[in-house]
Amino acid sequence: MAALDCVPVIERYLDEATRSLKLPPNLLGAIRYALLGGGKRLRPVLCWHCCTAAGGRGEDSLHAAAAVELIHAFSLVHDDLPAMDDDDLRRGKPTLHLHAGEPMAILAGDAMMAVAFEVLVERSAKPALAAALVRELSLATTGMIAGQVHDTLGGLPKGLSDKQKLELIHSQKTGSLIRAACRMGGICAYGDLMRSPPMLWLTQFADAFGLMFQVVDDLLDVECTPEQTGKHTRKDARAGKLTYPGVLGIDESRREVLRLQDVALKALEPLGSHADALRELCRQMAVRRS
Amino acid sequence: MAALDCVPVIERYLDEATRSLKLPPNLLGAIRYALLGGGKRLRPVLCWHCCTAAGGRGEDSLHAAAAVELIHAFSLVHDDLPAMDDDDLRRGKPTLHLHAGEPMAILAGDAMMAVAFEVLVERSAKPALAAALVRELSLATTGMIAGQVHDTLGGLPKGLSDKQKLELIHSQKTGSLIRAACRMGGICAYGDLMRSPPMLWLTQFADAFGLMFQVVDDLLDVECTPEQTGKHTRKDARAGKLTYPGVLGIDESRREVLRLQDVALKALEPLGSHADALRELCRQMAVRRS
Repeated sequence: MAALDCVPVIERYLDEATRSLKLPPNLLGAIRYALLGGGKRLRPVLCWHCCTAAGGRGEDSLHAAAAVELIHAFSLVHDDLPAMDDDDLRRGKPTLHLHAGEPMAILAGDAMMAVAFEVLVERSAKPALAAALVRELSLATTGMIAGQVHDTLGGLPKGLSDKQKLELIHSQKTGSLIRAACRMGGICAYGDLMRSPPMLWLTQFADAFGLMFQVVDDLLDVECTPEQTGKHTRKDARAGKLTYPGVLGIDESRREVLRLQDVALKALEPLGSHADALRELCRQMAVRRS
Repeated sequence: MAALDCVPVIERYLDEATRSLKLPPNLLGAIRYALLGGGKRLRPVLCWHCCTAAGGRGEDSLHAAAAVELIHAFSLVHDDLPAMDDDDLRRGKPTLHLHAGEPMAILAGDAMMAVAFEVLVERSAKPALAAALVRELSLATTGMIAGQVHDTLGGLPKGLSDKQKLELIHSQKTGSLIRAACRMGGICAYGDLMRSPPMLWLTQFADAFGLMFQVVDDLLDVECTPEQTGKHTRKDARAGKLTYPGVLGIDESRREVLRLQDVALKALEPLGSHADALRELCRQMAVRRS
């Protein structure tokens, strides 16, 4: 199975899981606007393939994959708000607060987080599985928000180099949810046996992959146009934020991508051919152009 | 035990449970500013006494009580934002976005919701208990947000009378979380036996109590000064929102309080003396002045 073959299955699941929610139609419309029709679905795809890499069936991780994507989508909606990044373009469409108003964007973001946890408990086969998944996702969500605070509002520990600051920010801001996606996939394969060897390897993979993903993101922000990425570019540099190209330079950032790719692939070695889709995904993400 | 004797225990638990969170200090400070030092703690108190009414020990419901209060406090932070109610006073203090800035208020609100679920899974004795509590709280949170959408952004079903609209809005906006507080207290006493008779009675109590609480709130908004309530008053009427005094008149609203109090007290009858603290709380809330 090619790495991205599961995307249509994930899209259908996201559609079905949100269609049936008992919510006011305007709220439901806002949630579905932000969640459906766009995005790489990287986190759900990671979840799916980490489930298969740990010996499970990808289908059994779909509810975990959907919950992670709901958290990711909620974070984008709130990050785009006028008081935050004040962004008007996301996944090639107007951001939610432009589409449905700022109050709705705040409330729909909030609702998406609650729905993520609802999906985990309503759709887990056993309470123990639900509890293990909720633990991963709640910790990852606070970690992601901590990273966003570090990135935009400070509060970093003193004495770190710029590269250490970048790694801390991104291991939280994007890394938390990528790590959770991978570990939750593993948990769906293994039940609540969170100390199984695959879990350790998947976590090591996720940490290197997540950082690599962010370095590539920073490079694309410098090198690409909005038409290619579906969002405004060069915002980070303009906002004076730390970026990998800014701290390491472009060439060294590219070498860092290759180094992190090697670490990620090495972590998968014990999983043999079960992890082939993850390897393919890792190589694709290292050279992605959008 | 008098109904409010558990408040200091709840306050200490909220302090302890948030002190140890591994978060950036500015984010942690914002969360604790919004959560600690103020508020009636009505929902945690309900949770505690519903646990004892169902035959459990109040202490065993503390983590559920804290999670409910975190959700309540998060909703206040986001409701107060400039794009929402644009409020500057809450619990007698400047609102969080005035104290710490709007981006921090958005992010701290988000983090409080995630921490609520984290507390449930980290502090439940068994995974099945955690899963049952997460189910209640996630559904209540989306219900609460749906009520807020109905109240401020429309999307109500067509053909309802003003009184029916009010009941629908408030059964969701304030009722969802009050119901969850009561049911989660019962669940902490009964494990995951959610169909136990006490659960039915506690739910009936919660629904009547929650509506009564809101009618009293609307009456206070008309009759009291900001000095008495610690927040601005007469906002709802000024904003053109539906209120009980506006729809029913003041006298009829007062009669509605007594009627709902009777329904709430009747629901508690099968629980005998176990429910004495809940009865006391119900009578106090019917005549509260702040």
